[in-house]
Order: sequence, then C-alpha cells, then structure tokens
Amino acid sequence: MTGSGSMTGRTRDTYKTGHGRSATGFMQHKHGGDIYSYKTIKDFSANINFRGMPEAVRTAASAAIASSVHYPDPEYRKLREALAERENQLLKRQKGMQCGTVLPQHLICGNGAAELMFALASAVSPRRALLAVPSFFEYEQALASVGCEIDRFRLHEEDQFGVRDDFLNEIGKETDIIILGNPNNPTGRLLEKEFLEKLRQVCGRRGILLVLDESFSDFLCARDQMRTCHGAEWAIQEKNVFVIRSFTKMYAMPGLRFGYGICSDTVLLERMHLRLQPWNVSVPAQAAAEAAARELHFAEETALQTRCNRTEMQRQMEEAGYRVISSDANFLLFLGPRHLQEFCVRHGFLIRDCSNFPGLECEDGCWYRICVRSSEENRELLEVLREAAGSQAVRNNWKSR
Amino acid sequence: MTGSGSMTGRTRDTYKTGHGRSATGFMQHKHGGDIYSYKTIKDFSANINFRGMPEAVRTAASAAIASSVHYPDPEYRKLREALAERENQLLKRQKGMQCGTVLPQHLICGNGAAELMFALASAVSPRRALLAVPSFFEYEQALASVGCEIDRFRLHEEDQFGVRDDFLNEIGKETDIIILGNPNNPTGRLLEKEFLEKLRQVCGRRGILLVLDESFSDFLCARDQMRTCHGAEWAIQEKNVFVIRSFTKMYAMPGLRFGYGICSDTVLLERMHLRLQPWNVSVPAQAAAEAAARELHFAEETALQTRCNRTEMQRQMEEAGYRVISSDANFLLFLGPRHLQEFCVRHGFLIRDCSNFPGLECEDGCWYRICVRSSEENRELLEVLREAAGSQAVRNNWKSR
Repeated sequence: MTGSGSMTGRTRDTYKTGHGRSATGFMQHKHGGDIYSYKTIKDFSANINFRGMPEAVRTAASAAIASSVHYPDPEYRKLREALAERENQLLKRQKGMQCGTVLPQHLICGNGAAELMFALASAVSPRRALLAVPSFFEYEQALASVGCEIDRFRLHEEDQFGVRDDFLNEIGKETDIIILGNPNNPTGRLLEKEFLEKLRQVCGRRGILLVLDESFSDFLCARDQMRTCHGAEWAIQEKNVFVIRSFTKMYAMPGLRFGYGICSDTVLLERMHLRLQPWNVSVPAQAAAEAAARELHFAEETALQTRCNRTEMQRQMEEAGYRVISSDANFLLFLGPRHLQEFCVRHGFLIRDCSNFPGLECEDGCWYRICVRSSEENRELLEVLREAAGSQAVRNNWKSR
Repeated sequence: MTGSGSMTGRTRDTYKTGHGRSATGFMQHKHGGDIYSYKTIKDFSANINFRGMPEAVRTAASAAIASSVHYPDPEYRKLREALAERENQLLKRQKGMQCGTVLPQHLICGNGAAELMFALASAVSPRRALLAVPSFFEYEQALASVGCEIDRFRLHEEDQFGVRDDFLNEIGKETDIIILGNPNNPTGRLLEKEFLEKLRQVCGRRGILLVLDESFSDFLCARDQMRTCHGAEWAIQEKNVFVIRSFTKMYAMPGLRFGYGICSDTVLLERMHLRLQPWNVSVPAQAAAEAAARELHFAEETALQTRCNRTEMQRQMEEAGYRVISSDANFLLFLGPRHLQEFCVRHGFLIRDCSNFPGLECEDGCWYRICVRSSEENRELLEVLREAAGSQAVRNNWKSR
C-alpha cells in the first residue's frame, strides 16, 4: 500500500503496484477450501453447494475422461449454445420476453471465473479501478498484474457491509473500471436494484467498464432476485457491462473449474481470446458445464434450501453470541474470537479466517466466513462454535462486545 | 507484419503488435485436432501418442471426478514432488548423478504448456524476441499479447528446417528472449548438442532468457537423446534457462491439459504465479499428471515404437512422391499438392494443413503435418496419400518438382 487517504469522510485506500514488480504478499493470500493441509476435516471454508455435484454433471464429466485423448473444442460451440439457452431461460423467468437475447457470441468460457478476471484485466489494461472492500481478492490480483492503480472503497459493518449510494461519490474522473460482486464475497450482500440502476447510469455516461461478478447469483431465490438486477440483461444491451458467472459454486465443481463471461462488446471478447490459450477449458469441464447448464431446477431448489438453512444458522449463531452479517448467498460472514479457526480445526472443522481480506482488519476479534451446508452439518459446526464462545481460553482473546 | 528485411543474406521478418491492439488474424489461426468440425474422422492432425492414455492415468483421472467437489491444491504439493522425482530419474539416466537435482520449488504447473507460455511472456514482458519459423504458433501469440517485437529467423527446407549456427548471428543487441522447440513443431527437428551449447553460452553471456520447449522431448529414444541436450540440467544451474514440458502429447491427455515449467529463477516463477489464477490445474488433470509422472517406461516404449513407425511411414511416403522432412518427434512434415487436406477429409482422414504457419508459405504446393500412429493406421492413411499422389485432379494443383 503506497498511500491512504480520506475523501468525503469515508476511508479510501489507494493501492498501486507497478507492472512487473514482484509483490510477494500475494503469495501469502490464503484461500478457502485448502483441505490439502489437513488430513480429515469437514470443510466449511469453501463456498460450495452442500448438495454436491448433480448426478448428470458427474456422469458427463466421467464419460469425458475417455474423450480427453482429444483436444477440447477451442470454440466451445456446443457449450456456448447450451449456456446461451440457459441465460435466455433465466432472462425469460426474471424479465419476461421483451429484453433481448443472449447469443453464443456474447459468451466467453474460462477455466474457472478467476481466469476470466485475469484475461479481462489484461485485455482492458485499465489505469484506475474502484473496488469495494472486503471483496474477492482476485479482483485486486488480476488488476495489479497489469499495473492498475486500485481505489478501495471501504464497506462498514454498521451498513452490514452493503454497498450504498455513497459508493457513487467515490467514482473518480480517472476511474475506468469498477468490479463488484453481486452477491459480494465474503460479505454475502447483494447489490440493491436502486443502487445498481444509478451505478449503471453513471458508468454508461462516463464510459466506465462495469464488471458484475455474479458467481454466487444462482444462490438467490426468486424473491431475493427481485431485490437486485440481472446483469445479463444489461450486458447484451450495453457494451460497457461485463458479467461473470461461475458453475464452480452452485454445481460443486471447483476441481473441474468452469466460469463464463457475458458481454456484447465482441471486440473486447476477441482481445480476451488473444490473451487466453486456445484450449483453456478441459474436455471434462466442458462436458460438466454443458450438463450443468440444463440444471436450472437443481439451482432453484438449492437456493430455497440455502435460504432456509442460512436463516436458521444465523439465528443460532447470534444466540451463541456471534455478530453475523445478514447474507444473500450460501455463506455467512461473522465476527468471532481470535484463534477460532485453530479451535475449529482441532475439532475437525475448517472455517475461513478472513483477517487477511483488505477491509476486514478488526480489533474486536476476527472475521470468519463459513459455508451454509445441510441442517445436520450446520448443527455439528454450531456445537463447536457454541463451545468456543463459552470457552475461557478462547474468550480471553475476544474483547467484550 | 509491419516490416521485413534481410540480414546476412537470411530472411528475417519482424512482426510487431502493440499492447492492446486487436489482431484479428490470430483468431483465424487453425490448430490441429479440431475433430469437432467433422462427424467421424480418423485424426492425424493432432500430435497425440497413438497408444492412448495409459491405464493408470485414465484411472486416476476418473477417480478424481468425485474429488472435484473440492478446489485443487493451489500449491500442487504432491504433484510437484512426483514431477521432481520424474525429472531426477531422467537426469540420472541421461547424465549420471553429478549434475544437480530438480526440486519441487523449481517447478510451475500449467493448464497445458500453452498457458505457461502466456504467463511467462506476461511475467517477463520482453521487448524483443527471436524465434525460428516455422514453429509453434502460440510462441508468437503469447509474446504479442504483451506487445513484444518478434524477429523471425526463417528455417529452410534445404537444411531440413534444422536450426543451425547461422541462427546465432541473428541474435541482436536488443534480443531479450529466445524460444525454440526441441524437437520443434511442426518440423519435428531436434536441436543438435553443439548448436545448443553455443546458444547457451551466448544467452548466458548476454543475459537473454532461453526458453526451450521440450513438449515433444519424451518422444526421443535414448540414442536420439544423445544428439541433443537435456534442458532440465541447465535450468537448475542457470537462472536464464526456462524449460517447458508437456504431458498432453506423450500421455494422450490433451483434453485434460497439463504442462509444467522448470526454472531455478524462483523470483520469475513467483511473478508467473501472480499472473495465474490460484487453481489453474484441475483436480482430474493433477491426478492424471501425478500418475503420468511415474509412467517413464511407457514413454520409453512409445519413443522406440514411434521411431520405428515414423521411419517406415517416411520411406513409404517418399516412395509415393512426397517430400518428407526427417523428424525426431511423433509427427512428419511433408510437401504435398494443394487441397490434399480436403481430399483426405473426403476419405475420412484429418491431416494438418500447415500453410498458415509463418515460414511455410510455399509455391510448389502446400506443407502438411501428420501424426505418426500405429502401423495399421499409418497404412490406411498411406493408401489415401498414394491415391492423392496418383490422382490427376489433385496433381493439377501440384507443380512438378
């Protein structure tokens, strides 16, 4: 961090890294889902659908091992058709018929959504980005890899880490890209419709590229979807909107990797293609994604169950004394005592220590993220969390609230 | 192409593309292995081991679908150990014990070797590269993606497209990276030991990054290995040597994707990591690669069979009237009449039309590449090639030689 300042009374950090400068700090950024450092553990640290991979997806991926003696189709023809079909079904459900059509040429496929972030940053080469923090760390890593200066707009617990209208005031004259998660990771908060409409207008007027990361949007059930906007609708109408989607989380295929982008700026998509190797998505991942594209019903069921399990989990955690952020996704961010992660690991559970997220530095304790899983799994974790909240040794590390 | 010139009597093309400029031409570059444009076809266009995926590799990949509900290990711990073990076995066989040890920290894993080319180009940001053409097109694409100026040293059929000492004269004062295939694709020619030793010295003296793409080196049998150098030995001794290896070809897993780099410049490796997403190699690809690392005997057997089949195939093709370049890899480059690809497709065989490779423009006919497969498969293709050579319609498009 080379500087920090305050504008209009809000904290605003500026982070800059030169193109090609080594930034060792990134290597130390730990992610969720690192089950490889532990022998047997119940993983609540990765935000993966607790129902697992749908049977059709697993079958398609398994069958594709035999065809992996061939190169993948570098044009992703069948897959992009299936994805366009999926997007149009979603549009129809959420918006009716009148709002346009997603075509295969609007889609770009990635070896996970994260790869597309890097290709996008490289293709656009933005000079100055505005991000809200805390958010997914790869936004910063991808932007830093092309020497982009980053303005961080700090979200606040008092607002439940929601992105509000004051974010708009932070858009500078030099801002040329804005990346927001909808819902955001690790907060789980969706972007409210009224805010997004305003943001869209500002970005359109000023020619700012608006990147909406909808990696967790499939976890919104119908009534929560009404509270926000559907990025694909804008992406097919306006060239400065780029939507990122992921199958990794909803279809429990993080090890297969698959994400895609939606954008009507086909020149930008071509520039991204130039920065990607021709066969970036493996044959099993393509087969799995094609099958997953048809699993809309599975996603809807999951969204409803997740909402139900999440509400119950939050209620019980608050009863146990934790400060929990209300989430719209399949995970919960909460404040707990220091060393809670180690305590959980000793009891066989892996949770995500979020203290290394910019924007989650905290003196009262430490922020953690857990995935919302099945009722039974959640109950098991709750027992450990209750024990930690009652333990003197752990409490000594937790300032009174 | 913005300019071309002649130095010391050899053709030397300079190709430049600005950072961020759209270069539509790349999108039109067709690769081998595009079986998706054809319904049923015998594929000789992709350079994949005709023996298919070893059973252990297939089993490992299949079993890994179930564990793909977890994220890959972003540090590739088990995999890098297996790869280091493999490299050290190869070093021991080829060089004896005295030449040093490949450690896991010298290795970087890629979603195919091509991904590593892009990450390397981005991490190094070279200004001026020297390549020999014809060669693998992704070298140029990766370099162009970071705005690097490219000098092309044109190889000649009279030299059987071998890279000879006159290449050294073309190394300019501004050259900061050299990428060569060993063996080279699409020519199949290995780099002779004497030439490589001289090149290594020049690069070491001038601080030029020497990238040796050994994606096809596993196809060299023991006696051919004696004619060239083993890049890993240099890479662990000298920071300016970077070796790229691939499992895609030898272990017939192009649809799973896996390649790795060997380099003792750990700062450079870290810079590459910053440009790659944390989970670039899928769980099935990691499992397959770990199994493949132990399949050295399979590779040796394949190399011997390939040499035998290739020699026979070349002899028969020459008898049929084709001009065939002597190859050290599992493919053959040859000159044939125009429209031979279409002729073969009509007969159910896909071969690689190489006329879009820079350096293979030709007025006498058209250059093609075929994979060397099993004796029986090769015989089937030979019948078609013989028929084409004898066909009046095809011959009309082929100037007398």
